[in-house]
Amino acid sequence: MKATAIRNIKSLVPLLDRVLVQRIKAEAKTASGIYLPESSVKELNEARVLAVGPGALDKDGKRVPMGVQAGDRVLIPQYGGTSIKVGEEEYHIFRDSEILAKINE
Amino acid sequence: MKATAIRNIKSLVPLLDRVLVQRIKAEAKTASGIYLPESSVKELNEARVLAVGPGALDKDGKRVPMGVQAGDRVLIPQYGGTSIKVGEEEYHIFRDSEILAKINE
Amino acid sequence: MKATAIRNIKSLVPLLDRVLVQRIKAEAKTASGIYLPESSVKELNEARVLAVGPGALDKDGKRVPMGVQAGDRVLIPQYGGTSIKVGEEEYHIFRDSEILAKINE
Amino acid sequence: MKATAIRNIKSLVPLLDRVLVQRIKAEAKTASGIYLPESSVKELNEARVLAVGPGALDKDGKRVPMGVQAGDRVLIPQYGGTSIKVGEEEYHIFRDSEILAKINE
Amino acid sequence: MKATAIRNIKSLVPLLDRVLVQRIKAEAKTASGIYLPESSVKELNEARVLAVGPGALDKDGKRVPMGVQAGDRVLIPQYGGTSIKVGEEEYHIFRDSEILAKINE
Amino acid sequence: MKATAIRNIKSLVPLLDRVLVQRIKAEAKTASGIYLPESSVKELNEARVLAVGPGALDKDGKRVPMGVQAGDRVLIPQYGGTSIKVGEEEYHIFRDSEILAKINE
Amino acid sequence: MKATAIRNIKSLVPLLDRVLVQRIKAEAKTASGIYLPESSVKELNEARVLAVGPGALDKDGKRVPMGVQAGDRVLIPQYGGTSIKVGEEEYHIFRDSEILAKINE
Repeated sequence: MKATAIRNIKSLVPLLDRVLVQRIKAEAKTASGIYLPESSVKELNEARVLAVGPGALDKDGKRVPMGVQAGDRVLIPQYGGTSIKVGEEEYHIFRDSEILAKINE
Repeated sequence: MKATAIRNIKSLVPLLDRVLVQRIKAEAKTASGIYLPESSVKELNEARVLAVGPGALDKDGKRVPMGVQAGDRVLIPQYGGTSIKVGEEEYHIFRDSEILAKINE
Repeated sequence: MKATAIRNIKSLVPLLDRVLVQRIKAEAKTASGIYLPESSVKELNEARVLAVGPGALDKDGKRVPMGVQAGDRVLIPQYGGTSIKVGEEEYHIFRDSEILAKINE
Repeated sequence: MKATAIRNIKSLVPLLDRVLVQRIKAEAKTASGIYLPESSVKELNEARVLAVGPGALDKDGKRVPMGVQAGDRVLIPQYGGTSIKVGEEEYHIFRDSEILAKINE
Repeated sequence: MKATAIRNIKSLVPLLDRVLVQRIKAEAKTASGIYLPESSVKELNEARVLAVGPGALDKDGKRVPMGVQAGDRVLIPQYGGTSIKVGEEEYHIFRDSEILAKINE
Repeated sequence: MKATAIRNIKSLVPLLDRVLVQRIKAEAKTASGIYLPESSVKELNEARVLAVGPGALDKDGKRVPMGVQAGDRVLIPQYGGTSIKVGEEEYHIFRDSEILAKINE
Repeated sequence: MKATAIRNIKSLVPLLDRVLVQRIKAEAKTASGIYLPESSVKELNEARVLAVGPGALDKDGKRVPMGVQAGDRVLIPQYGGTSIKVGEEEYHIFRDSEILAKINE
């Protein structure tokens, strides 16, 4: 992962079938409401979709429709993807076909 | 395998040709009806399908029909797939074409 | 290979172009009619087809016809395939295109 | 290589584009007519075609015509293929496209 | 990376779907306006597109349209691509499909 | 490389897009006309085409025309191909697309 | 790299989409006009195209047009390609799609 000079993650426009997501952090408090120190907060494989590309091009030059949209809550694979850092926050870029499932809320 | 914040496995909607399954546990009692301690219960390669995606997209953008459906009892490969944990339960996501066979009941 | 809870191998319905076979055991007696202990019985690369899938889907969504059928005696490759165990018996699942030859009887 | 219970190599019917061949043994006598012990007889990359499959299926479901036929004398690659043993004899199965050349007699 | 005799980067005309970019350097001064020594300036994964090829050829011989254009600010992958050096400056050539995202300014 | 029982290289008929060639030996004499011992004669990457196959089959079952013909002098890759020995002579079989260039004489 | 008996590089006719190039040598004198010993002359990734093939065959048997022509000055990849030696000179053969960029003069 490398730092970027991007000031606002909203300025990022994914290309082709790429999906920009941010991992959802596990709640940093226990069931009884006690807040946990950050080091004990587990990373989850859930993420919020922030932006999606226009879709890959098929062999006839048409866009393959994306499976997810900005705002979707999704299950991401544990490995793979590209991580980028904007300020203190970490984001990930996956291909649309790598997203495992949507999570209905 | 990573924990998720998903509260209910039913909120998971597989994408493309993915199949969400849960392994069937071997019965934890012997033929003579004695219950076994959990550590001696073997994992099986049989699973129950909980949810399926809409199918992969073929080169013309049409959905390839799925071979299995929610509710099917299936034979899964021993390796591969993606495991996810919701609460204390473990689930697996496979591609439709990785499912070896249906098991008629 | 992993055990399964399947009670009857006939309940297994292979998917796509998969072929369920059982190896044919070498005869456990010598030419002069003496029965051999099981450990000296060689495994053969011959198998009996128990069930076949409906065929893989070609790029137009049509089924590719299977090369073998239930009941066929076939030559299987020495490696590859998936082994499953039902009770004390071992079975194998191959793709149709992996079966080397039929054996006429 | 594994033994088989096949009694007659002629009962073997290759599937798809497979070619059943038997290596031609180098003549076990010298130019001056003296017979050599078997261990000094070199294996050759020449083989006799015993049986051929009906051809692979192309993407439209049609058979790709085979390049060799039963009876052809052919040059086989040094590695690859599948060996099978019937009685004391060894045979090989290759894909049609692996056969390097026909040998005119 | 190898030196070239190219005197002016503008003389470089990428072929097919290649994209010529130059990494954007992190600002060499702190928030309070103090200039940093060059060794402490981080490399970023952001780049400016200097020139693009005409696009890859699809199977019908038509050009696949490029996703980025000269002048675009883009997010590049951390690894991959080809580096070239013209004078003291370093440049990179990527395939169009390797560029992760555009950065709106 | 393995010996063959082929008596005449002309009996070899390459299949599909295969090309039978023989390396051209560097001249075994110096510029001043002195003959060199064989061990100091360098192997060259030039070869004479002895026979060519009818061409590979494209996806519609038509033959892809060969790029070289019997009699052509060609540049062959340093590695790859299959070597065969007939009597004391060594020959090579390449795919048509592996031949790098023709050499005009 | 292997020596060839080719007397004139112009006798080489590349096949399919191959491109015959020769690396451009860095000028062997300093800015102030002093000639450098050959060992200190750097190899460049620039090359002059000497000859090109007629183009690869697409799946319909038509030639894919070449991106470069004889006479073009081009940027070549640092690795890959095939080197050949004619007399004291070294040449390289690349596929058309491996050439990174043209260099306008």
